[in-house]
Order: sequence, then structure tokens, then C-alpha cells
Amino acid sequence: LEAGEVDQVYTLVEPLHPADIADLFEAVDADERLALSRAISDLMGGEVFAELNDHVREGLVDELSAEDIADLAEEMETDDAVALIEDLDEDEQQAVLAEMEPEDRAAIVSALSYPEETAGRLMSREVIAVGEHMSVGDLIDFLRDDRELATEFWEVFIVDARHHPVGTCQLSWILRAPRHVPLTDVMKRDQTLIPVTMDQEEVALRFQKYALISAAVVDESGRLVGQITVDDVVHIIQEEAGEDALALSGAGDGDINEPLHMTIRSRMWWLFINLGTAILASSVVAAFEQTIAKLVTLAVIMPIISGMGGNAATQTMAVTVRALATNQLTSSNTWRMIMREWWIASANGLGLGMLMAATCQLIYHDWWLSLVVVLAMVLNSLNAGLSGVLIPLGLDKLKIDPAVVSTVFVTTMTDTLGFFFFLGLASALLM
Amino acid sequence: LEAGEVDQVYTLVEPLHPADIADLFEAVDADERLALSRAISDLMGGEVFAELNDHVREGLVDELSAEDIADLAEEMETDDAVALIEDLDEDEQQAVLAEMEPEDRAAIVSALSYPEETAGRLMSREVIAVGEHMSVGDLIDFLRDDRELATEFWEVFIVDARHHPVGTCQLSWILRAPRHVPLTDVMKRDQTLIPVTMDQEEVALRFQKYALISAAVVDESGRLVGQITVDDVVHIIQEEAGEDALALSGAGDGDINEPLHMTIRSRMWWLFINLGTAILASSVVAAFEQTIAKLVTLAVIMPIISGMGGNAATQTMAVTVRALATNQLTSSNTWRMIMREWWIASANGLGLGMLMAATCQLIYHDWWLSLVVVLAMVLNSLNAGLSGVLIPLGLDKLKIDPAVVSTVFVTTMTDTLGFFFFLGLASALLM
Repeated sequence: LEAGEVDQVYTLVEPLHPADIADLFEAVDADERLALSRAISDLMGGEVFAELNDHVREGLVDELSAEDIADLAEEMETDDAVALIEDLDEDEQQAVLAEMEPEDRAAIVSALSYPEETAGRLMSREVIAVGEHMSVGDLIDFLRDDRELATEFWEVFIVDARHHPVGTCQLSWILRAPRHVPLTDVMKRDQTLIPVTMDQEEVALRFQKYALISAAVVDESGRLVGQITVDDVVHIIQEEAGEDALALSGAGDGDINEPLHMTIRSRMWWLFINLGTAILASSVVAAFEQTIAKLVTLAVIMPIISGMGGNAATQTMAVTVRALATNQLTSSNTWRMIMREWWIASANGLGLGMLMAATCQLIYHDWWLSLVVVLAMVLNSLNAGLSGVLIPLGLDKLKIDPAVVSTVFVTTMTDTLGFFFFLGLASALLM
Repeated sequence: LEAGEVDQVYTLVEPLHPADIADLFEAVDADERLALSRAISDLMGGEVFAELNDHVREGLVDELSAEDIADLAEEMETDDAVALIEDLDEDEQQAVLAEMEPEDRAAIVSALSYPEETAGRLMSREVIAVGEHMSVGDLIDFLRDDRELATEFWEVFIVDARHHPVGTCQLSWILRAPRHVPLTDVMKRDQTLIPVTMDQEEVALRFQKYALISAAVVDESGRLVGQITVDDVVHIIQEEAGEDALALSGAGDGDINEPLHMTIRSRMWWLFINLGTAILASSVVAAFEQTIAKLVTLAVIMPIISGMGGNAATQTMAVTVRALATNQLTSSNTWRMIMREWWIASANGLGLGMLMAATCQLIYHDWWLSLVVVLAMVLNSLNAGLSGVLIPLGLDKLKIDPAVVSTVFVTTMTDTLGFFFFLGLASALLM
């Protein structure tokens, strides 16, 4: 495809949606991306760059001059331009900003002044805000006349003299009302305001909970400073929700476009920590070496007990982390959740423990061994269930992200105690 | 709170948003929900029911007559009413439908005729569709006059004489255009149409990719039959993305409001299957009982090798499942992904294997044992990396949801082969 046939590539790519062009860049090999971007350089507008994966975009942006980047940023909405510029290093940022129109530059500088991953970075400054005195007809005339307005908006915000939002109007309400009706009769006073410093995860939960299409962003003094629209929130919802599976497994952000050495480093770091916990668990086994030497069968059954504990804990942990991330687990139902997991652990430990004991009895014909198996399974199941719920809850209380850290602690608990229960009971009852 | 003080409860709950009232029901104990719903019965409108968790809603709906349910369903938008009614059993569905107005009944019967989790169930039938001949002014007059329109809409769909959509108009474009301009000059012809049978997960990905606010739903013949708005899609994006962590851990849908016996059943079933794979892996250990009897240290190191393999495989699997779910992994980059994981596995296996061998050498002063450890770690790391990427890919090719089934196969591979590599090498090189 890439073999010098620039025109052909261009003809193929031209009819595509910017989001599809961005996907195309992610699909081709890293060393072909530059050639592709040159072949279709005049299709590479702000919209395509806004849709690109961070790592892919960085690779392309490195090849551009500050002036080119500034041109791209000016085509974009504030929030996308900020995403483009925030990844550059300090010098490049200054060079790019110097090339921009004063107005756009001011908007971006002000956005960059808010912490990363907050509403301030996410919002677009282009927002339709009108005074309370206007009628529906006045608003329509205003919208028709003024050419310098936001390109995309779904709601109009009504503000008072101090620029504080007092109500929101869906465009459909305006279209359906007669011209003479005052806006204050059409608008909804009850609105969800987003403080400019709110974390983007919290913003996403608000949008989801109240089914918002757009929302007004206000600064510390309550003044309207921008709006966030749902299309900017949708990918945050998706990322934050999908992060759990990746974080619980220690796979970092799981971006398949991340440079290889970064992925190796982050994954190896996680495996290194887990190696530590595995060595800790195996030191428990080492303490019972004499017991195992007398009955090697223990070494055969041992991984089953710790493995079941690990699986049960992972289930509980995934549910707890998810419930915390979606604000379903609050102080009012924490106790119910813990009791719930206690019952599940008891039922599963007893059921599977008895099944496992029966299997052992069939193979080894040793009642005492079977008793050790069922006791160890029940104890480790309770240990797994309670670790799986209490450790994420504790981390959350300490303001540590439970998705990222829980697995290490929970695995340590189930492996170490799993071996200890089984080998300890065996040395007490069988030797 | 619940001790008979009905008026006080009512006063507290009254100012809340329906979504917050729904949250309140999820937070209180199951046996208090009925009392609460009685205390605030006239606040329990369709909007609150639409926001309730499935299991909580079922508990409340069981106490209502068919007539009450029909009243609730009539207050709701079609998609929410369908969600309420689809969970009832056949008899109750008929009874409720019989109580409804013919028009609402027809809409719901038609929605129920589409398979679950498709666009047909998700869409609302209330949609603004106008002919191509209209001007902006005609449309505004039409919207002002007709009282029976959809309550919420963000875009207007332009249809031809056969009711096929030919373009979409954002309301802001209409508000900003002069009255005499024909709609065909304002509308965008390029639109994302959703077939009525499309899976809801695919619908969510479309909305996300093209940053849609609403989209036209068309039937097999291309006729416009409804619209889907982004607020209905947002919770699907959230659920589908969050499902991975739960599915990979075998925790079902992870709903903390699910009745206890259902949760125990689904989780035990998963643990039971995993017990089978654990027994399989331990049969490998049993085959080497003689080797372990000669060198009990092997039983101490064994869980470290299989554990590291398990962790590495979980990382790779989480990344692969996520990339598949978000359509980032397609046939064009499959090979790159596999090679990528091969390199990561080699680097991690070699790095951590040498570290582990050095630790063994320090403790046991046995060069041959250390060699066995590093070889087993490298082999199992490659095994883990390749299983973690190839098994989900294979399941996906077979149209089996990789998130749900991968873990069982991958764990079997890393445990069974992990034990085999380590104990096999030990019996070959050390005995």
C-alpha cells in the first residue's frame, strides 16, 4: 500500500471520517506513519489529530514545526488543543503558543493553569451565555447575527449580571416557544454546575448520573467560565471504566501503541513486586519443609488451596473496586457489602471444600488428610473473601487508588495464609 | 430514619433529583425499600424507576399492580418503559400491556419484537423527522405548533418521500440560519445510521468514535424508525467497559444488588471450573512426586514459577481483551501485537529469571538449581505472554466473548506448563 503510490493512498483515504483516518494511523506500523502523514498532509487537520492515540500523535507531532502545531491547535476546540499542547515539553509549548493568535493563546494558557485531569482542562471556553432579560425572539436574533459563536452547542446558559448561571435552556425548548416568551420562563433553574477544579472522573459520573448533554463550568466565585459537552466525557467514561481490568492486572494503561520499552518497564516493575510477595509466600512453604518431606502429597494439593483462594479473592476484589469506582459503595452500605462477601465466602468455601475433600478421599483414602483439606479451604475462602473486600475499602479510605494496589496485598494474603492454613493444619493433625 | 416518621422522610426526599432518589433505594437495606417507597409513593414516578438498579426495581415492581406498572410505563420514554417491562414474566407483560394506551402499547410491543441488547430495544420512537422540501422557517413553525412531539431532541432528521433519512440538522444550525433557507442547505448529508438490529455494544462504539449526540435508527428497508440519544448510550459504554474486569475474574456482572443466592451460584460455578484446572495442574506435580521427595526445596520454589507466569499472563490477557473490546485490535495489527507480547515476555522472563536465579544461588548455593530456575522462568514467561495474547484472539475469532472464557484457559496453560517446565527440568538436570 505504501510503496510510493502517494496518489492512490490519497484517493483511498480522502472520503474517510477524521476518526477513521486516526484509526488508520494506529493500524499501520510505527515506521510507516510518517510516510502516510506526508502522503495525505492536507487531510491531516485538527480533527484527525484530536482523534489520534497519545503515543501515535506524539510521534507525528515531533516531526512538525512549532508553526504547524500552532495552526493545528487553532483549528481545534480548546479542549483538544490543550490535549495536543500539554504533552509537549516546556520550550516547545512556549514556541507553539508564541505562534498562535492572542485570543486562542489566552484560552490555552488559562486551560493549562488548571491541574491535569480536571474540568478546567476538559471544558471548552466557547459557550453561549445570555442575560436573563432576553426573550426567545431576542435570543434567536442574537444567534442569527453573531458570527463569532461556538461552533457546536446544545444548550444555552442564562446568566445574571455577575455572570453567574441562573438556568439552562435546551435548544429544543427555544425552538418550540413563541418569540415573545421571556427566557426565564423557558429555562430550567435546576442545573448541575461543574466546578472548574473537579476531577474528570467525577465529571464523568455526574454526566452519567444526570444524563447530561452539556453542563456549565463555574470558577471559585461561581462565574460561568466554560462548558463541557457529553462527547468529551464519553471517552473518559470509557477509559476510566476500562482501566480497572488493566490496573488490577498491573498492565499499566494497557495502551497497545505505547513504545515497547515503556511497556516492558511498567510491567516488569509490577512483576518484580509480585515476585517479592511470591517469595514471602514460599518462605511459609520453606518453614514446613520437614512436613512436606514426610508427606509429599502435601506439595501436590498445596497449589490447589492457594489457587482457589486467589480466584475467590480476585472475584470479590473486582466487584469491590468496580462498586467503589461507580460510587455504588458508600459508607451506608459498606457493612452490608462486607457481610454479603462473608456469606458468599462461607458458602463457596464449604461447598468446594467438601467437594475437594471427597476427591482427596477417593484418591488417598486418608480421612485426616481430607479433614485438613476441607478446613484449609473454608479458612482460605473466608480469608480471600474478606481480604478481597476489606483491602480495596481500606485503600480507598486512605485515598490510594484501590484498582492499582489491591492485587498485590490480596495475593499476598491468599498465598501466604493459604499455604499456612494448609501446611499448618497438616503438621498439627497428620504428623 | 424509617421508624414511622413518614412525613419527615418525605420532606427529606422531596427536593432530590430522581437519580438521587434511585441511589437512596440502592443504599438502604432490601427490607426497608418497600416501606420507603410507600412513604414517598407520589414521588415514585417513571423517572425514579428508570434510574433504579434492575434487581432493586424488580423487588419494588413485584409489589405493584399491572395498572400501576402501566401508569409508570406511560410516563417513561419508550426505551425506559421497555427496560421495565422486558423483565416481567409473560403473563404480567400481557396484563401490563392491556392496561396501556393503544399508542404506547404498540410502541412497546414493537420494541419487544427486537432481540435484547440491540438498537431496537434502545431507541426511542419519538423522533423529529421532516420532509426535504421544508425551509428553516417552516420547521420552526412546525415545532411551535405541534404539541405531540418528542419531549427531548437534539437533532432533526430530514427524510425523503420513502421516509429514508437523507440528512441531519443540529438544532443550533437551525437557530442560526435565516428563516428562508431550505433545510437541505443547512443539514449534513454525511450521517451515521444505526441499523435496528445492531448490537448495543457496537452502537456505543459508534457514538464514541464519531462523538454523536443522537443518531437515526433505520429498519432493514432503510426507513427511519427511531433515534438513539447519547444519554442512553453512556451507561452502556460504562457497563461494557467495566465488564472486562468482572468477566476476567469470573465475578458475573458484579452487581452488588443481585440477590445473594444468585451471586453465590454464579461465582461458585466459576470457582468449580477453576478447581478442575487446578486439579489438572496438580496432577503434573503428582507425576513428579519422586523428584520432590528427593529435593523438597522444589516444592518451595514451584509456586513462585507458576505464580509469576500467572501474573504475566493476566497482564497480557487484560490488554488483549481491552484492545479487542475497543476495536483497537484488528486483523491488520494482530501480528504486531503478538510480536510485541513476545518481546515483552522475553525481556521480563530473562530479567526476573536471572534475579530469581541469583536469589536461589544466595540461599541454596546450587548452580544447577539456579540454572533450572532461570530456564523455567524464561520458558514460562514466553508461555504466559503467548497464551495471554493468542487465547483471547482465538476465542474472539470463534465468536466467544474472550473476557468471559480466557482466564480459565490461560490459567491452565501457565499453571500446568509452569509446573511441568520447572519440575521436568529439575528431574532432568538435578537427579
